[in-house]
Amino acid sequence: MSQMSQISKTPLTIPSLHAAYQAGTSPADIVEQVYARIAEVNDPAIFIHLLDKSEVRQAAADLGAFDPAKPLWGIPFVIKDNIDAGGKPTTAACPAYEYEATEDAYVVAQLRAAGALLIGKTNLDQFATGLVGVRSPYGFPKNSIDPDIVPGGSSSGSAVAVGHGIATFSLGTDTAGSGRVPAALNNIVGLKPTLGTLSATGVVPACRTLDTISIFALTVSDAYAVFEIANAYDAKDAYARRFTAGALTAAPSKMRVGIPDANSIEFFGDNVQKASFRQSVDILVQSGAEIIEIDFTPLYDVARMLYEGAWVAERYTVIEDLLKTNPDAVHPVTRAIVSKAETISSADAFRGMYRLQDLKRAAEPIMAAVDILCVPTIPTFYTVADLEADPVTPNSNFGTYTNFVNLLDMCAIAVPAVKRSDSRPGSVTLLASAGQDDLVASIAQVFESAVPHTLGATSWSYEATPLAAPQAQKDEIEIAVCGAHMSGLPLNHQLTTRGGRFLREAKSAADYKFYALAGGPPMRPGMVRLADGGSKVKLEIWALPLSELGSFMAGIPSPLGIGSVMLEDGSSVKGFICEAFGAAGGTDISDLGDWRAFLAQS
Amino acid sequence: MSQMSQISKTPLTIPSLHAAYQAGTSPADIVEQVYARIAEVNDPAIFIHLLDKSEVRQAAADLGAFDPAKPLWGIPFVIKDNIDAGGKPTTAACPAYEYEATEDAYVVAQLRAAGALLIGKTNLDQFATGLVGVRSPYGFPKNSIDPDIVPGGSSSGSAVAVGHGIATFSLGTDTAGSGRVPAALNNIVGLKPTLGTLSATGVVPACRTLDTISIFALTVSDAYAVFEIANAYDAKDAYARRFTAGALTAAPSKMRVGIPDANSIEFFGDNVQKASFRQSVDILVQSGAEIIEIDFTPLYDVARMLYEGAWVAERYTVIEDLLKTNPDAVHPVTRAIVSKAETISSADAFRGMYRLQDLKRAAEPIMAAVDILCVPTIPTFYTVADLEADPVTPNSNFGTYTNFVNLLDMCAIAVPAVKRSDSRPGSVTLLASAGQDDLVASIAQVFESAVPHTLGATSWSYEATPLAAPQAQKDEIEIAVCGAHMSGLPLNHQLTTRGGRFLREAKSAADYKFYALAGGPPMRPGMVRLADGGSKVKLEIWALPLSELGSFMAGIPSPLGIGSVMLEDGSSVKGFICEAFGAAGGTDISDLGDWRAFLAQS
Repeated sequence: MSQMSQISKTPLTIPSLHAAYQAGTSPADIVEQVYARIAEVNDPAIFIHLLDKSEVRQAAADLGAFDPAKPLWGIPFVIKDNIDAGGKPTTAACPAYEYEATEDAYVVAQLRAAGALLIGKTNLDQFATGLVGVRSPYGFPKNSIDPDIVPGGSSSGSAVAVGHGIATFSLGTDTAGSGRVPAALNNIVGLKPTLGTLSATGVVPACRTLDTISIFALTVSDAYAVFEIANAYDAKDAYARRFTAGALTAAPSKMRVGIPDANSIEFFGDNVQKASFRQSVDILVQSGAEIIEIDFTPLYDVARMLYEGAWVAERYTVIEDLLKTNPDAVHPVTRAIVSKAETISSADAFRGMYRLQDLKRAAEPIMAAVDILCVPTIPTFYTVADLEADPVTPNSNFGTYTNFVNLLDMCAIAVPAVKRSDSRPGSVTLLASAGQDDLVASIAQVFESAVPHTLGATSWSYEATPLAAPQAQKDEIEIAVCGAHMSGLPLNHQLTTRGGRFLREAKSAADYKFYALAGGPPMRPGMVRLADGGSKVKLEIWALPLSELGSFMAGIPSPLGIGSVMLEDGSSVKGFICEAFGAAGGTDISDLGDWRAFLAQS
Repeated sequence: MSQMSQISKTPLTIPSLHAAYQAGTSPADIVEQVYARIAEVNDPAIFIHLLDKSEVRQAAADLGAFDPAKPLWGIPFVIKDNIDAGGKPTTAACPAYEYEATEDAYVVAQLRAAGALLIGKTNLDQFATGLVGVRSPYGFPKNSIDPDIVPGGSSSGSAVAVGHGIATFSLGTDTAGSGRVPAALNNIVGLKPTLGTLSATGVVPACRTLDTISIFALTVSDAYAVFEIANAYDAKDAYARRFTAGALTAAPSKMRVGIPDANSIEFFGDNVQKASFRQSVDILVQSGAEIIEIDFTPLYDVARMLYEGAWVAERYTVIEDLLKTNPDAVHPVTRAIVSKAETISSADAFRGMYRLQDLKRAAEPIMAAVDILCVPTIPTFYTVADLEADPVTPNSNFGTYTNFVNLLDMCAIAVPAVKRSDSRPGSVTLLASAGQDDLVASIAQVFESAVPHTLGATSWSYEATPLAAPQAQKDEIEIAVCGAHMSGLPLNHQLTTRGGRFLREAKSAADYKFYALAGGPPMRPGMVRLADGGSKVKLEIWALPLSELGSFMAGIPSPLGIGSVMLEDGSSVKGFICEAFGAAGGTDISDLGDWRAFLAQS
């Protein structure tokens, strides 16, 4: 089972390493630890290309003195061998495909510029085709938790390396679930970002319209820190989207979480997995989430498009020459899957797109009804022996909760959840619409902090990092409301129907006169700021999508407006203000300083 | 040449007809006029299915009394025969493809509900494949201006019917330019909306991902009125987009207009067309536009994708069965074009999409540098004899300025411009990014009102309709600014760098104290509204994209905010307000009421 001999070593999380560096540990020490760990694990199938220790030591020495401005200073990482590192071979786990990369993939360059140390290039299901991790001519990495279980794929080596504590983080890629399934199987975090947020320059495509680099790490905060650095707009990637990651915060106190309903949830008979998922959902409930059961059939319909539909032709574009000139160079299972494209016409390809568009439309109400979805990352576990008996069915089943995600342009994070009764790791994946990477990551931490646990296959304990209060994401604005827009009051729908999210309660600075304005219904209050003196007012702070602010503002009547509201902690936030002239005829309720208290007594 | 005998008849524009109806003309009278005109024109190739006059008379009678709430009450229209009318045959100009439609196309239903009277179904290039209008087994409609010239296609019958004054408006469809090229050839307006704004339910597809219904009319305001009614979200059309058309207004007083530069503009040697286009651009210059010459090569690269690339496979999906079972039923030119799909693999289809994505990226800087593009609708004219000599080259050349438009998700309007020296019609097309249909239509009216002219092939004179002042589009918010954000002042860039557009000057109601606030630089004014009495303040009203409002607001410091600013005409607009406490320490400049005047004297 798990190798625990690194117990006395420095945990490889970013906060631990940076604390160690500040306390005098050198990156060279960590490089020694990493290579010692590689030797100890002794699984030659993890890496397709391991860098010479001397080369990594030189890179560590080149970092100079510890530089807190470099957020990944001295952080060891590995990359899946379908991602380029300058001067190194890229194989995509196919020796006949091998080429030497002239430069780093765009994302790798971002990470190295931030101080990260590349250790090696990891094994994968050939051409990133598979979710099992055993379809490689380089052998396959053993699962870090239990060698009987498959490692998961296609990013097998990247997940196993992090699970073993060989690297702080790793890059995988994810088309069908390759950045999530191996995370579940190795008890680690798998961050599958919104498509287009991480450049694809220097990555061997699987399905170019559906691929993304993904990130494995031991904790959500480490994975998210890497994502924030890796995320930079690359004009050379035609599928890149301009996107700025929002901050990781505490989870919002109110959220609507969709889960598969009893008829559509699928564990393939694994009641232990079912129990783990149920307990994991309970954690969300305890954190204040509203659980909404959803019929997942439309999502499964989408999932089937990935391998049964036109998209396999994208994989064909990558290896067409090889299949025609040297078919035996391609793994037989991979060849069987990708060659299907030869029977698909261009008309079929467009018919597939039409069908997907219809299915997307059918799935829209699902995401409109919830903030996020929570699913089991995998429905059950499969062993190496299972795969030897049937190389296809377990692979398909692994994709139950992952295959639809990129087709529907969702972001995802797989996170360890409640451990199963048989000690295998529990894992859930949180899903949201494109661009909400910060939201799913923030909520994922609820699972990490709910139960004391160790990281991956290591003996290192999870340690929570302090988090900012829930705040607006980059595409949202915070609005302080003090009256009829508060939760449960008559105008609250003006926020909720626009995708507004409750963030937190707050109090204004003691600078205001608070009025119940004349007129209505609905009755409205007004906060008139005074030059000096005044009262505090009870507030709710909501996040509103920026795109909705205009229509929201259009409904705000004189004498109200949106300006700066001063808070009792000295900060300010945008929120409702009232022009002083408008207080005429109103009732001064400053002594209450609380609209709900006023409503209760009036 | 043009038939002018309807000179004493009621012009078929919507305002003329509605004025006539209000003055006592009955819809039955107009039905008589329409059928008399059809007889007079005597071109049996215009219609594939003309409704019995008795049926239209009955529909007219069913309208009851004139109802001004129905914006198309009693307005005659025709539709291209690839669009369904309930109970009527749809052929797409292929007799073997004919079926009887069970119900109206979604858009047709909207128009009939608004009171429009369907007259018939018009001829087209078979399966909407072509820009010439002569590829039909039903013969081809003669051009309404000059029978020697091709009518233009694929929406030939729809354009010719409007040009002749048979119908007020018509529906075409547009994939490559079928809603624009025939407009240019028949001296009428062709509105090609943003993809997804008009439902495709009940329309025979050409390329489903690139098709839209289009609108022909005699004037921009008529075409736009029809667009506003036809535009309704149809949940059954998976490619539908939620969109609400903005109002048609006067053109903005400042606009950046891109035109092809000298190296990339193409007239195929037609210097008369070149001169007409140059004079048309001069009209824009006289209206205050800034002209920016642009290398169109990246757009032409996109255009070539349409027939040389994968998208022909979309056409193949529509007629695959027919091509396999009854190939002779398909027009030989159409068959030759569409059959190319048989040589295109699914992998080729995806390669085509990758190439388009790369080309889209390359074209992005072009649209970022301008508000709209202005191009000749067609580069030159071709006669029926030219087409008989070479059925392909003239068709390709017609698409020079149209083929890239739908692939790049632009909206377009073709509008009659400066008449050529040989009396053939001049026409330009204005192009903008998706969703700016109101902007291009508003600007198109500059051409209509610049030169007195007659409509289509009729003798009816163009009469301008009064227009609202420029106002914000649906995805913009109007913001009144009174200080440093005004044109040329230090914070104006906060508007312009966010895509803000100057709309107009205005004055506030006489309700304000106007202060130069303490602090700065930059110096800022504040408008504090009084309960009664006060001064007027000079304002500029800007349109800001809604999506930018949030970041704009984040930069607004206390004591300023955005609220309701009262205007001297009694209306109100969102704009800068100032909390009264913030005036402390400021200078009262209410007597000036004009920030620039204050700056000039301080």
